[in-house]
Amino acid sequence: MSEALPRVALIGLGLIASSMAHALRAKGLVRDITGYARSAETRAVALELFCDRVTESAAEAVKEADLIVLAVPVGVMGEITAEIAPHLKPGAIVTDVGSVKGAVIEAVSPHIPQGVHFIPGHPLAGTEYSGPRSGFATLFENRWWLLTPLEGQDPAALARLRALLEAIGANVDEMEAKRHDLVLAVVSHTPHLIAYTMVGVADHLRRVTHEEVIKYSASGFRDFTRIAASDPTMWRDVFLTNKDAVLDILGRFTEELFMLQRQIRMGEGEQLHAYFSRTRAIRRGIIDAGQDTSAPDFGRAAGQPKA
Amino acid sequence: MSEALPRVALIGLGLIASSMAHALRAKGLVRDITGYARSAETRAVALELFCDRVTESAAEAVKEADLIVLAVPVGVMGEITAEIAPHLKPGAIVTDVGSVKGAVIEAVSPHIPQGVHFIPGHPLAGTEYSGPRSGFATLFENRWWLLTPLEGQDPAALARLRALLEAIGANVDEMEAKRHDLVLAVVSHTPHLIAYTMVGVADHLRRVTHEEVIKYSASGFRDFTRIAASDPTMWRDVFLTNKDAVLDILGRFTEELFMLQRQIRMGEGEQLHAYFSRTRAIRRGIIDAGQDTSAPDFGRAAGQPKA
Repeated sequence: MSEALPRVALIGLGLIASSMAHALRAKGLVRDITGYARSAETRAVALELFCDRVTESAAEAVKEADLIVLAVPVGVMGEITAEIAPHLKPGAIVTDVGSVKGAVIEAVSPHIPQGVHFIPGHPLAGTEYSGPRSGFATLFENRWWLLTPLEGQDPAALARLRALLEAIGANVDEMEAKRHDLVLAVVSHTPHLIAYTMVGVADHLRRVTHEEVIKYSASGFRDFTRIAASDPTMWRDVFLTNKDAVLDILGRFTEELFMLQRQIRMGEGEQLHAYFSRTRAIRRGIIDAGQDTSAPDFGRAAGQPKA
Repeated sequence: MSEALPRVALIGLGLIASSMAHALRAKGLVRDITGYARSAETRAVALELFCDRVTESAAEAVKEADLIVLAVPVGVMGEITAEIAPHLKPGAIVTDVGSVKGAVIEAVSPHIPQGVHFIPGHPLAGTEYSGPRSGFATLFENRWWLLTPLEGQDPAALARLRALLEAIGANVDEMEAKRHDLVLAVVSHTPHLIAYTMVGVADHLRRVTHEEVIKYSASGFRDFTRIAASDPTMWRDVFLTNKDAVLDILGRFTEELFMLQRQIRMGEGEQLHAYFSRTRAIRRGIIDAGQDTSAPDFGRAAGQPKA
């Protein structure tokens, strides 16, 4: 499969793009990587760390590219595609890494010229860090990379992209865009919103000072703050563009929370115990599916929290 | 400080008690450790792994003890104290490790005989595992151990307990019980309830099958499932006994969530972005305070999620 897509253009140079670049380089899968980001500082870092070349416009970056990766916030995918569209090479593959697929397809597809293959995608991988210095070559190893191919997608182009993603360690799966957006609303988007909310509550609470919240953050809250430290722009766009599914799941969440809240108020211990027992099984399933470590506390080095 | 409290009795032999035993042994701080648990199987494991002796009743376990640690669910603290009270040695120290302090003090204090020192406590340490095999010697290192001394507490007894806890690595702090329960409702109890709820929602959602939730659990949900895998009995008791503070914080949480939900529905991107930016600062504070690792994704070994 070596060099089936020799020239890669990365549009946006944050955590995902920089990790892709490191991974592609580490495995020697491509000939050259061109990068574009709006900020000159980001471009300079990318040039130093993982790009062969950076350009001052997105249009310039894609000219020779066989594979174009849109790695910008979901809210600007359409705009940037309009900008690069006239410069795309016939036969090129455009993919994106947005966390929402319906809205991206709606924004990007109309701009894609005949003869260019647009294959929407979403790597289920990330950390709470962002920016061009946050990437690392192993980010995608053993993680899912979901592709949501459009009707009439060229199978050869799909196979080429798939092979490249698998070569950097990802487990590639295909699913329908609408279903993707609902599944992600459950497993990622709504949990993030809830984590943001809980951290916000703690921040506003004046009776419990900021200092005490931080000082005594036990594991529950600590995990929430990690989630709530993710990139604000990316998450704003996720919620605005996957609005329907997120509002649906939020409604279910609130119903469920009110039920538990009532059980607490009424002192219904048996029901609470049964509920908490059921949720344990899901955790077990995730560990068995290889999507998390079974080490206690995620394997945080005990006694070395300052590391 | 060596052997200021030579004989220790552990009532309840789960994660916290077994970790204490391992830590006390590793540092050579006590002469012998007696254990009691309701289950014969638990007692057998404890005898094999970390107890010098186990007994078939709690009363028997405390007879010679200088320090008695109540490490049972909050809901049975009162009952077990009534049982051991007649057998406590004058001058002995009784402490507990319950996550709620107001309710424990109310349940335990009336049974404590004259001449015995009851010093309520709560180690802010744990993992999602429970039982006598889950303990390890470094669990308390660099973690807070909150003591909520009662009025008229004997300073010498308090100093002895404090020194022992510090010797196993904990950072000991004192605070008033009511304040403890509110702070913990914010940083631990309510986050746990929310995590349980979110995992419950996912479990009930039939459109998104169980399998897909597990298969594609991205980091947001994955972290929630870890929290929601904690011991059901312990958490039932926490919610029932810290009801007022938890219901208070839940009310604030729901208000805040509805505000964000409305902003999503109305497409108010600027407000969302501002909110998500503020929550980042809290995370930074926790890392600076040394209560978590700054390694991406908690330092989960990238590419080794099956570990």
